[in-house]
Amino acid sequence: MSDTRIIAEAYFNSLEARDWATLTDLLAAGVVYEMPQTRERITGRDKFLRFNQEYPGDWHLIVHRLVVEGRRAAAWVDARVGEEHQDACIWLDIDESGQVFRVVDFWPETYEPPAGREHLVERH
Amino acid sequence: MSDTRIIAEAYFNSLEARDWATLTDLLAAGVVYEMPQTRERITGRDKFLRFNQEYPGDWHLIVHRLVVEGRRAAAWVDARVGEEHQDACIWLDIDESGQVFRVVDFWPETYEPPAGREHLVERH
Repeated sequence: MSDTRIIAEAYFNSLEARDWATLTDLLAAGVVYEMPQTRERITGRDKFLRFNQEYPGDWHLIVHRLVVEGRRAAAWVDARVGEEHQDACIWLDIDESGQVFRVVDFWPETYEPPAGREHLVERH
Repeated sequence: MSDTRIIAEAYFNSLEARDWATLTDLLAAGVVYEMPQTRERITGRDKFLRFNQEYPGDWHLIVHRLVVEGRRAAAWVDARVGEEHQDACIWLDIDESGQVFRVVDFWPETYEPPAGREHLVERH
């Protein structure tokens, strides 16, 4: 198993476990967290930890798929709050010392499909 | 360069080029295309080709990041129609013969951030 996979799994496991000590060790001091959908950016380990600690709701993360290559990882995460479920696509960059220095999160929301392709699709 | 990377790049290049012959060769006959946000599913190469051929707008795809491992690829794609831009997160599965047999597309949309985290984030 690659170091990148181990680090990426530990990243999600420590979030899920609210294991802030382990998460701290996994993050570079200058980690940058980006959410392109809202154009929000958080810079630095302290603020990023606080963001996660303060994030509302009893959220849980299940890694549905993890693809790693070199020092990059892409995760498809199944996030749950109670009965609610949302997929997330998360892109991690890991530095030479094995710390996560960039996280980019996408949180796609459900929507109704546009008309005009009913002849091709089925809904499930 | 891995076969998976070559196949994934060819997948996006053939879409961008509207090179339907090359795309056809890259797709398994029973390819399944899924859009979890709308719970839509398209089954089979012919319907999937037609879906792309009929997709409205002069769309263009730029692969911003591609992470490959084994026979899986994750792509962060910058999709453009004129001045409009949208990120997509796309997950590919490739079979033993080198054909794409599953494509899962996420198309996250922009939104305004919730209140309560202004002390941690900057917007760009």
